[in-house]
Amino acid sequence: MTAKLDRIHDEDLRGRVVSAESAASWITDGMTLGMSGFTRAGDVKAVPSALVNRAAHEQFKVNVFTGASLGSDIDKMFAEAGIINKRLPFQADPVMRKKINQGEFMFVDHHLSHTSEWIRHEVIEPIDYAILEAISIKEDGTIIPSTSIGNSLVFAEHAKNIIVEINTAQPELLEGVHDLYSPAKQGERQPIPLTKPEDRIGEQGIKVDTSKIKGIVFTHQEDSPSTITQPDEETKIMADHLLDFLRDEVKSGRLTEELAPIQSGIGSVANAVLHGMVDSEFEHLQVYSEVLQDAVFDLIDAGKVDFASCCSITLSEEKMKQVFSQFENYRDKLVMRPQEISNHPEIIRRLGLISINTALEFDIYGNVNSTHVSGTKMMNGIGGSGDFARNAKLAIFVTKSIAKDGDISSIVPFASHIDHTEHDVDVVVTEQGYADLRGLAPRERVPQIIENCAHPMYREQLWNYYLEALEHGGQTPHILEKAFSWHTNYAKNGTMQERTLEMV
Amino acid sequence: MTAKLDRIHDEDLRGRVVSAESAASWITDGMTLGMSGFTRAGDVKAVPSALVNRAAHEQFKVNVFTGASLGSDIDKMFAEAGIINKRLPFQADPVMRKKINQGEFMFVDHHLSHTSEWIRHEVIEPIDYAILEAISIKEDGTIIPSTSIGNSLVFAEHAKNIIVEINTAQPELLEGVHDLYSPAKQGERQPIPLTKPEDRIGEQGIKVDTSKIKGIVFTHQEDSPSTITQPDEETKIMADHLLDFLRDEVKSGRLTEELAPIQSGIGSVANAVLHGMVDSEFEHLQVYSEVLQDAVFDLIDAGKVDFASCCSITLSEEKMKQVFSQFENYRDKLVMRPQEISNHPEIIRRLGLISINTALEFDIYGNVNSTHVSGTKMMNGIGGSGDFARNAKLAIFVTKSIAKDGDISSIVPFASHIDHTEHDVDVVVTEQGYADLRGLAPRERVPQIIENCAHPMYREQLWNYYLEALEHGGQTPHILEKAFSWHTNYAKNGTMQERTLEMV
Repeated sequence: MTAKLDRIHDEDLRGRVVSAESAASWITDGMTLGMSGFTRAGDVKAVPSALVNRAAHEQFKVNVFTGASLGSDIDKMFAEAGIINKRLPFQADPVMRKKINQGEFMFVDHHLSHTSEWIRHEVIEPIDYAILEAISIKEDGTIIPSTSIGNSLVFAEHAKNIIVEINTAQPELLEGVHDLYSPAKQGERQPIPLTKPEDRIGEQGIKVDTSKIKGIVFTHQEDSPSTITQPDEETKIMADHLLDFLRDEVKSGRLTEELAPIQSGIGSVANAVLHGMVDSEFEHLQVYSEVLQDAVFDLIDAGKVDFASCCSITLSEEKMKQVFSQFENYRDKLVMRPQEISNHPEIIRRLGLISINTALEFDIYGNVNSTHVSGTKMMNGIGGSGDFARNAKLAIFVTKSIAKDGDISSIVPFASHIDHTEHDVDVVVTEQGYADLRGLAPRERVPQIIENCAHPMYREQLWNYYLEALEHGGQTPHILEKAFSWHTNYAKNGTMQERTLEMV
Repeated sequence: MTAKLDRIHDEDLRGRVVSAESAASWITDGMTLGMSGFTRAGDVKAVPSALVNRAAHEQFKVNVFTGASLGSDIDKMFAEAGIINKRLPFQADPVMRKKINQGEFMFVDHHLSHTSEWIRHEVIEPIDYAILEAISIKEDGTIIPSTSIGNSLVFAEHAKNIIVEINTAQPELLEGVHDLYSPAKQGERQPIPLTKPEDRIGEQGIKVDTSKIKGIVFTHQEDSPSTITQPDEETKIMADHLLDFLRDEVKSGRLTEELAPIQSGIGSVANAVLHGMVDSEFEHLQVYSEVLQDAVFDLIDAGKVDFASCCSITLSEEKMKQVFSQFENYRDKLVMRPQEISNHPEIIRRLGLISINTALEFDIYGNVNSTHVSGTKMMNGIGGSGDFARNAKLAIFVTKSIAKDGDISSIVPFASHIDHTEHDVDVVVTEQGYADLRGLAPRERVPQIIENCAHPMYREQLWNYYLEALEHGGQTPHILEKAFSWHTNYAKNGTMQERTLEMV
């Protein structure tokens, strides 16, 4: 316990160490929790578990606000225990997803840079308990976060009470990597003084009124590793297409060889595409992103990335071991910020980011669906993709052109849910190629998307839809009767292919 | 001519005065023109007309880029003459609209804050001729714009050649109202040093390399007055609902009595809703908007608005006379900026704007269509609504609940085109009431929208759709087979009302 207590540098606060069960017992029905955690990294682990245990013999419900998705099966356990009223702004757990789609609790699918403004301006429920993972608490009560910051700063600033989980399994070398900056209220704030990804503009930890720290719990548990799959033949081809596009941009003088700071969304495809840069000619790259996944560290190792800014580090099991065992090699090349800053429109527009995010599907005019399977069922959430796509210099979306062995085309006549409109999508990439949509009217985008991105097995079918729609005219020709026929065909016949339609 | 020549303060430049016909003769097939003009204000008038005249005996096509829509029937004449290849980023002319929807030329419907970035970073065609209306040219060649700035600064900076139209019908007192600020390239720029609507951060005119000024044309022609209709009983009721919402925000402490800087979109409904504040208790208001329409000057006259920032002043005939005949009363309360700055995400987020824009239709989940009639036919364009809605503190959309005597419901199951996604829409207002969607999951938004915003004649029909969809579950329940049935019913039977469907 002594070694553990060394993580608390304030004598007074050492007296507030409690068990996870005790801390969880303070939480009562109807409360709102602001929990650390962003894409499985830096989530609190012990208090949420203890809270779930209470549900076995007690009825209560809470609102759960986080940075993004959680690891350690917390979202799964919460969903199964039935103790959630409202969850925001992002999740990625299959069990939770199912409960959301059954309407068992409310999921507010929210831009990741916006939640902090809602809390600051008291638009949503006030935070009763901020529950934050840390690696230590300094003499002055400053809380040093662990592998993510997410919304922890704004939770701590506005919570009535704070519970800190000090996780001794998290690398202490993370101290110094964090940069905590909190804008004033809208209308009273100054420009955010950040003009380069490596700029430090804030504090190394979360400064709080220590009287709000009600309890401190010790844990020793690593983050859940990321679930990304390794790059495959198709994602390598997609990476090559993206590189071809970027090379053309350099050739035309629109980008330099150092490109522009890169943002890459969560998930296997975005990670794999970014990984494709390891063998490219591009050097002295910079990353300004939410999550750093494996690929960014591979790029640092390969001498391609000079610096990376993030709000979370989420790695596979193997990569986690490698990175955290030699963290002294990386720490000068990293800064971790609140998600409000990593995803801030002011910074994204100023730096002119190249933003790479994954689409579920997109349509022949370039509208992108990032969230809803068949237009109705939530997958994970929009996450930061809207923050980036709306304000980036280059909003790029990647997806494989088909899914389910070809029964689903990712390119459809009309996206069944729209998270990113035609106005916000610059380039779409599949394993077939890329379509550069910038400066094109809707009718000009169609051939680019069909010929360059759609799978050959669906091209004729897409042309048929478009050519029939074209007979009716319009800026954006459509046949509304048939706009979702591909999705309804899939629902009825298990495929979007028309042959099946004809056979029925 | 002497009096006119006094408007050119540089001796050398006086020698470049030419006729509109001469200036128009320099423009050749395939060129790209960057023309001043934003919602009928400050558009160039003589050179475009002379260019149209050439089309009677000569075949050519040009790209026409502007700030926003033009007056003086320029867009109509261009469209009729068939001399356009590509038009961007906005228009509002019925003849042009028809040609766009027939696919006669390409219309790129673009966020108004983005065009400047595309030009600066050479994403779209380079500007061959910037053609800019001015009130004068100073000793050092600085061009003083007239009633709009729009994209004129970026056009002038990047054009190969510049033609200036000095319009002696425009009030000279406008000099000093303009504030021209141009960000450096993305990745090289500093924060935009603007923290209050009244801040002046740039120059009073457009500083150019005078060697690029190829010709100067004199005109004497007032701007086309705006075509807005006066507030009616329904828009007054809508304004009252909006005021009720704002009062609740003040009561809850989320806004002060001075509210927050207001943006209001172009058009009669947004103007009328803003006008409704004249008789409200709110005072010391500030406006940070694109276009100032009549209502803002009524609010200044009523002592309600202290200061207004804009990129264009577009008034009705009567209001134009009143404002410009006593402009000394207004000029200290106004600043006019490039549309890149009036619509900049950095500033919109920093100031925490209250943004009020008009919707064509919205759906039961809060997705908004601003542009496409029945999902296919372009109305005007997205304009700045996306710039504001995406980054404002409060993104409010207003529309009447029905159109065409009730045959169209503005609230539909699935918006037939989506310009603003559910993630970006905070409040929707009709003459029926308002729905505050903040913090609500999709299923929670439905009753708010149906009960508070839909017309009573359509409420049951909306509930029927939703309740049937709900049986299938999902975060966002839909029946894709029927999602656009209201639109297709209207196309076939002239009404969205189901009774007709049943009778068929």
